Amino acid sequence: MEIALNELAKSIGLECKSTVIIENLATLKDARAKSLSFFHDRKYLDDLKATKAAAVILEKEYVKYLPKGVIALITNEPYKKMALATKLFAYKPYTDTFEPKLGEGSSISEHAYCGKGVVIGKNSTIMAGVFLGDGVSVGDNTIIYPNVTIYHGCIVGSHVTIHSGTVIGSDGFGFVSKDHSNTKFYQIGNVVIEDGVEIGANCTIDRATLGSTIIKSNAKLDNLIQIGHNCEVGDYSVIVSQVGLSGSTIVGKGVVIGGQCGTAGHLKIGDRAMLAARTGVTKSLEGGKIYGGFPAVEIKLWRKMQAALMRLVKSGKQ
Amino acid sequence: MEIALNELAKSIGLECKSTVIIENLATLKDARAKSLSFFHDRKYLDDLKATKAAAVILEKEYVKYLPKGVIALITNEPYKKMALATKLFAYKPYTDTFEPKLGEGSSISEHAYCGKGVVIGKNSTIMAGVFLGDGVSVGDNTIIYPNVTIYHGCIVGSHVTIHSGTVIGSDGFGFVSKDHSNTKFYQIGNVVIEDGVEIGANCTIDRATLGSTIIKSNAKLDNLIQIGHNCEVGDYSVIVSQVGLSGSTIVGKGVVIGGQCGTAGHLKIGDRAMLAARTGVTKSLEGGKIYGGFPAVEIKLWRKMQAALMRLVKSGKQ
Amino acid sequence: MEIALNELAKSIGLECKSTVIIENLATLKDARAKSLSFFHDRKYLDDLKATKAAAVILEKEYVKYLPKGVIALITNEPYKKMALATKLFAYKPYTDTFEPKLGEGSSISEHAYCGKGVVIGKNSTIMAGVFLGDGVSVGDNTIIYPNVTIYHGCIVGSHVTIHSGTVIGSDGFGFVSKDHSNTKFYQIGNVVIEDGVEIGANCTIDRATLGSTIIKSNAKLDNLIQIGHNCEVGDYSVIVSQVGLSGSTIVGKGVVIGGQCGTAGHLKIGDRAMLAARTGVTKSLEGGKIYGGFPAVEIKLWRKMQAALMRLVKSGKQ
Repeated sequence: MEIALNELAKSIGLECKSTVIIENLATLKDARAKSLSFFHDRKYLDDLKATKAAAVILEKEYVKYLPKGVIALITNEPYKKMALATKLFAYKPYTDTFEPKLGEGSSISEHAYCGKGVVIGKNSTIMAGVFLGDGVSVGDNTIIYPNVTIYHGCIVGSHVTIHSGTVIGSDGFGFVSKDHSNTKFYQIGNVVIEDGVEIGANCTIDRATLGSTIIKSNAKLDNLIQIGHNCEVGDYSVIVSQVGLSGSTIVGKGVVIGGQCGTAGHLKIGDRAMLAARTGVTKSLEGGKIYGGFPAVEIKLWRKMQAALMRLVKSGKQ
Repeated sequence: MEIALNELAKSIGLECKSTVIIENLATLKDARAKSLSFFHDRKYLDDLKATKAAAVILEKEYVKYLPKGVIALITNEPYKKMALATKLFAYKPYTDTFEPKLGEGSSISEHAYCGKGVVIGKNSTIMAGVFLGDGVSVGDNTIIYPNVTIYHGCIVGSHVTIHSGTVIGSDGFGFVSKDHSNTKFYQIGNVVIEDGVEIGANCTIDRATLGSTIIKSNAKLDNLIQIGHNCEVGDYSVIVSQVGLSGSTIVGKGVVIGGQCGTAGHLKIGDRAMLAARTGVTKSLEGGKIYGGFPAVEIKLWRKMQAALMRLVKSGKQ
Repeated sequence: MEIALNELAKSIGLECKSTVIIENLATLKDARAKSLSFFHDRKYLDDLKATKAAAVILEKEYVKYLPKGVIALITNEPYKKMALATKLFAYKPYTDTFEPKLGEGSSISEHAYCGKGVVIGKNSTIMAGVFLGDGVSVGDNTIIYPNVTIYHGCIVGSHVTIHSGTVIGSDGFGFVSKDHSNTKFYQIGNVVIEDGVEIGANCTIDRATLGSTIIKSNAKLDNLIQIGHNCEVGDYSVIVSQVGLSGSTIVGKGVVIGGQCGTAGHLKIGDRAMLAARTGVTKSLEGGKIYGGFPAVEIKLWRKMQAALMRLVKSGKQ
């Protein structure tokens, strides 16, 4: 996709005279010479000051922070305008299927279906009912069980196992809600599943808004787990069934997350932290400790809270 | 389906001499001239007094409330007898597939499968592995991603997006449990997805027992969400991942429901209410307020409860 | 699979001179004349003393408890060594499909796919997109809705209904985590679904590690439910949506489990117990009582705890 900036601006209701060519959308941090980016939250001010984007959608008062040569698209609603821009770059699904490129020793069921340009490595097995979207790549010695769906552009490593019904690369949940309308922020990113990962049945791992959602090497996920857009799950981490990670949750290495836990978005869980089942994480947690409860606290404290409540009832003095 | 009332009555172990033809089963409110209905809960007494049904299954003491001309089928177990009647009207699945009627600009994968009488509007895209049951209709500009299942009789509007693995129109969870048996209440209704709705991956939206489960226009649902039979989700409402709505939950307009919330059945959530993640709703909630906790209370109160508990522990005086 | 014990031992880094033939892996209790078993937890000491296994992997200090004639494979890491052994017996997936053996009155969609040796009884209906793995058997009068996956070796009874997107027999979640590695304990067992069971949409029922995960007759499961490896759900029990049962949870007869409940593993829920929605079960529960809260207590107590907390806030004296 290539579009002149002035045309792009016009189509989202903004004005700009530059005819520089925009090739992609990116965060301030990831933006390159032909990227359009946006700034909508002061916590990204350092990224704004250092961005390599061709142009940035932002409010007037922040124009002064733009690096020299970066073009400003000025608006009071940068997030909504960026959402409108994503529509121009959104993937257009279609229904034709194509033959994948298959490495030595690999096999794909005649009842599995691929988009354009799918590449599968060596000794991998793709079973019936699997759908691999445009440009999906699968490594070596990987098993994809029946009825898995992997959307366009996602990358699956080697020695990976994905169980039935799991969906990888569906749209992250991004809507700009205002005045009784929900404007979709089209999800331009992808999902990367690194080597040695195992994912259970009926999980959902959303593609990134911009950039990648990443499941790092040797992480193990149980069934019915939700991984929001732009999450990272660290190496060797273990996530038990029915956990939900909200968008942009960053899970460190060797973390263990018990069943039915949930996290609010945009937070970090430090290396080797352990979360008891059903923990609800509302802010970042230091690594190396054990947590429980909702809101999450160190598990010893949570147990004291439960005990205190029990004594309160039994004492009859409230 | 047409059956004489006396035959129908006999097949469920009741007596009746009338040979009036029954064409469908319905709630007291929705019942029409050829409907059979039932009364099993005093909260529907006004509906009983005004019903237009041909006949009603009910206990003897309520016969006096029947409008003139409505036939009574008397029993001590009206709910169980209605459940037996639903079996007569239940859908019979089969395995043949048929060509759908396809509007201009629409395409359906040759690896998607349809029952009889499927109708798809203009510019819609139905991808591989999708199943559309008998009589399903899909509007214009709608995208159905791979491996979605939509059961017979469900209606999908225009500008709708449904992500992979989602199941629409599976049976609502209805069993009459008694004396070590679970009698199935066959689910005769359907699901209606209105225009502009987006539904994430691996959701389940159950068909109504009688009538329709409805997702209203421009509502947005994330992944792994359970919507029970006969629920309504209001216009522009937003539901985050892993939420469960029990049967007959009525969600108003512009409501926001955070991740992993749950509701008990047969309650209402008012317009523009907001539920923090993990809220457990046990009774109806007024609109325009923010709630949290389980059982749900206004979120300020819930925070005070958490703080009080924390102080109780720290004070050491319990 | 047949392998001489000395070869098997060598391949997992142990020593043994016996050339006795091992045909399968089993728990101490289920082991027979040609089984290899393992002992890693003192709570199974009685099983160790009575095992009929050909050989047992265990720590040196427990060798003295072995019945006469049973061969010891000695190690400091019996669980990890057994995990390595499971790899030898693990199922190897492939992509060819075969014709099932179909009973009178049954039909299978031409768009459903079977492994080798699938047997379907009378009057059953297998719809499009269904996958039945090697050796799956399905009884009479059973309906399997579109896009269900049933892995190799699982057994489905008669008068069973399984709704779309459900996955039966995916791997239980078994990894031996140590020193930044997760060694997979391959899941050798299966799933047995007894007569009269109904399972909702997008559920996941994991195969047993060794032995069977069992859903007993007339149990009814709603949608999006996780059943871990080696669980048993008793006759006539009812489980509402989004419940998660951890591995080896034993649910008695006629139990009712409300929506979004969860259980820790290796515990029992007694006959006719009732769990309110969202109950978190951390230890075994007696039958015939009603529970709620997390950790689960009798529901009356849980309500008192909530009320006490509320009074604490309102009194303002904390």
